[in-house]
Amino acid sequence: MEKHDFVTIADLSKEKIEYLLGMAQEFEKHPNREILNGKVVATLFFEPSTRTQLSFQTAANRLGARVIGFADAKTSSTTKGETLKDTILMVSNYADVIVMRHFIEGAAQYASEVAPVPIINAGDGAHMHPSQCMLDLYSIYKTQGTLENLNIYLVGDLKYGRTVHSLIMAMRHFHPTFHFIAPKELAMPDEYKLYCDKHGIEYHEHTAFDEEVIANADILYMTRVQKERFSDLMEYERVKNVYILRNNMLANAKPNMKILHPLPRVNEIAYDVDDNPHAYYIQQAKNGLFAREALFCYCLGISLDDVKNDTTIIGE
Amino acid sequence: MEKHDFVTIADLSKEKIEYLLGMAQEFEKHPNREILNGKVVATLFFEPSTRTQLSFQTAANRLGARVIGFADAKTSSTTKGETLKDTILMVSNYADVIVMRHFIEGAAQYASEVAPVPIINAGDGAHMHPSQCMLDLYSIYKTQGTLENLNIYLVGDLKYGRTVHSLIMAMRHFHPTFHFIAPKELAMPDEYKLYCDKHGIEYHEHTAFDEEVIANADILYMTRVQKERFSDLMEYERVKNVYILRNNMLANAKPNMKILHPLPRVNEIAYDVDDNPHAYYIQQAKNGLFAREALFCYCLGISLDDVKNDTTIIGE
Amino acid sequence: MEKHDFVTIADLSKEKIEYLLGMAQEFEKHPNREILNGKVVATLFFEPSTRTQLSFQTAANRLGARVIGFADAKTSSTTKGETLKDTILMVSNYADVIVMRHFIEGAAQYASEVAPVPIINAGDGAHMHPSQCMLDLYSIYKTQGTLENLNIYLVGDLKYGRTVHSLIMAMRHFHPTFHFIAPKELAMPDEYKLYCDKHGIEYHEHTAFDEEVIANADILYMTRVQKERFSDLMEYERVKNVYILRNNMLANAKPNMKILHPLPRVNEIAYDVDDNPHAYYIQQAKNGLFAREALFCYCLGISLDDVKNDTTIIGE
Repeated sequence: MEKHDFVTIADLSKEKIEYLLGMAQEFEKHPNREILNGKVVATLFFEPSTRTQLSFQTAANRLGARVIGFADAKTSSTTKGETLKDTILMVSNYADVIVMRHFIEGAAQYASEVAPVPIINAGDGAHMHPSQCMLDLYSIYKTQGTLENLNIYLVGDLKYGRTVHSLIMAMRHFHPTFHFIAPKELAMPDEYKLYCDKHGIEYHEHTAFDEEVIANADILYMTRVQKERFSDLMEYERVKNVYILRNNMLANAKPNMKILHPLPRVNEIAYDVDDNPHAYYIQQAKNGLFAREALFCYCLGISLDDVKNDTTIIGE
Repeated sequence: MEKHDFVTIADLSKEKIEYLLGMAQEFEKHPNREILNGKVVATLFFEPSTRTQLSFQTAANRLGARVIGFADAKTSSTTKGETLKDTILMVSNYADVIVMRHFIEGAAQYASEVAPVPIINAGDGAHMHPSQCMLDLYSIYKTQGTLENLNIYLVGDLKYGRTVHSLIMAMRHFHPTFHFIAPKELAMPDEYKLYCDKHGIEYHEHTAFDEEVIANADILYMTRVQKERFSDLMEYERVKNVYILRNNMLANAKPNMKILHPLPRVNEIAYDVDDNPHAYYIQQAKNGLFAREALFCYCLGISLDDVKNDTTIIGE
Repeated sequence: MEKHDFVTIADLSKEKIEYLLGMAQEFEKHPNREILNGKVVATLFFEPSTRTQLSFQTAANRLGARVIGFADAKTSSTTKGETLKDTILMVSNYADVIVMRHFIEGAAQYASEVAPVPIINAGDGAHMHPSQCMLDLYSIYKTQGTLENLNIYLVGDLKYGRTVHSLIMAMRHFHPTFHFIAPKELAMPDEYKLYCDKHGIEYHEHTAFDEEVIANADILYMTRVQKERFSDLMEYERVKNVYILRNNMLANAKPNMKILHPLPRVNEIAYDVDDNPHAYYIQQAKNGLFAREALFCYCLGISLDDVKNDTTIIGE
């Protein structure tokens, strides 16, 4: 089977998304295998992201691959004066697939053009974080039983949050209704509203965030409102406690409603929400393991049928 | 079999200690196995401790497990504004067991209360370092043939040294006689002397450290006297060369006497001691491998019988 | 078979070099195996060198070994006040072989004298980098079909470049003709010219670097001219653009000529050279994998015959 890069969610077809979710489902049934035995995965983190790195490393290890790499290029010698091209070509000599996080937008796309081995984008600047999007989709699919015709509420920093932007693009195939809930300074950029218009996606904008507004939500996707994003600190002081989800706001939520968050959270979800059955953000992170196992196989040319017929399952 | 946390030595029964030593003994016979194949171990070092981390990573690898984690949370992004609870829950999604070192006393206990997977305490502040204690016990058992009725001399910084405190607690089952040899500023705290009284443990205090004092020792447990522990630097200057073990002090030692040290040492054991047959601190560190292999199995619910019947031994 | 240290290229016999190249050739045929299953490799980098560390880690992982270690001792706690001897003895308790990079010349030699396990020198100060030399030799052998009677041109910083010094020593068995092309401030030291005289090696010195000078080269070995090496910055300004290889200088090169570089490069090879068939520096780095797989086996007492008869090959 053909090898693939995984650089952006924007050009993934409906069929490809459903295919990858089907593969994640197989890995959830049996996460521990030797299907990547003999493979080496490189995790190149040009900026640190311990959480994402741990998730990819776990996925590689649970499939029997070995992991090399670095956690922070600034404290390593890899890139001293060396071009990204040379670094990628060098690592391509050693690894069968490269997972990379880079602080420059488009770095993963560029790497995919020069590397002889597949590239998985683990975040490039404020641009894309497509593996996070895959686990968000898988979490929605698992909890709702479908991706079709859902009411999805995005809350918080909709201006800079790359995960919410990716989610809009990925959901274009599935007839969602979006609600954008944000302070004016962090409102959804026009670019993504035009994207919705172009793809016939219904959306509504709100600045209020309370029990009433979210009563019809199937998915409530929380993100953090960061002080440093505001040019007007008075405005920050005015809104900082507005976009916090509290347990008493969930009394009238639909039974199927689930709360997602890309993590880490600081205070945008109160701790008394954690034990509410609507809370799903910790399980959501676990879905990242299965989604990333699927991505490794997809990128290395292992098909869904290969996974279904796999006999290397461990510990059962 | 039941899974366990391993947070403190204080509540371990005599039977449990002997059981774990028996398991360490099995691993010393055959350290390389695949008994943890398919398992993922996380080593979360919120403060760096390369030596302890290498030891745990070796133990995991030699049993066939895979290792993820970080070496220093201060330079990682894991904990930026995130609570310890969220970090532990996140990593519990990925790993089957978590080894953690934290700079706050009680952090491991707290983690064990929130984590769905077992927690192994690799040191929490100045509080506990129970895996070090297990290797100390195994070293004593191996070299003396018993843990019962031994004369154990603790030398150096008895005020802040968590390894000597843990050793007192663990030995309460085995009728030891302790000798505490320390400068006044670093004397054994009353808390642990009361502990001895309460458990009927005989102890003697000394400020002198010479051939005479240690002539009756079965175990001579050295620790470092650090300058920064003294409020009165004149006092430090007065005692700094007193608590150094030199080869000529060992002429009248009992034949079975062994010198232990948790390492790293700086100058508290002179280098001419290294070739003396009483020196045991390097082999002691090796026992850490077997003790930690036993801890991984214990925490993951693998019994001594499982280990004895294990057929995954490698390279023999 | 006997275990070996690999500390220097200087005392390796012709037979031993050819033996190791033969082993690298076997690993190039089948790089993925389980021949080191159950072994633990420690990579101790007392100064960072991500590139070299990734290469050794890949070699260990592709042979089925497990890897422990640290990437930068300055940010770790390993060596706080501890002697190198104690650190090496401690790690020898855990690992079957130690790969070490150290900032002090002779550190690897010293380590090999105290360690009970084999030591592989991954660079000690400005002194030796013998595994780089093995991959240089393997690259020359692969591209030229022989090591005998070659015209080898060394270009750039010949004063401080440890790779070119090692190459001269290793090639003494094979009747090379060397050409040293360098600015005066970075000329080949007398020490190595005397070495050539003593071993009957023909050499020529040049300060010019152009198409004419290199027309007869079989191997063109480029190194970087670093500003900080110059005491006279006027001199640096004068020569800084002289020792740059450009594509138009290769028009009359011999068909078999290959360009090597230990990497990373900054600007000493223009990017338009990359697609020239004479360019070989990226493939050269890949040869490092096979050369280092051979070194691990050699050091652990696994013979060429063992490798030829190995039945643990993966994924074929």
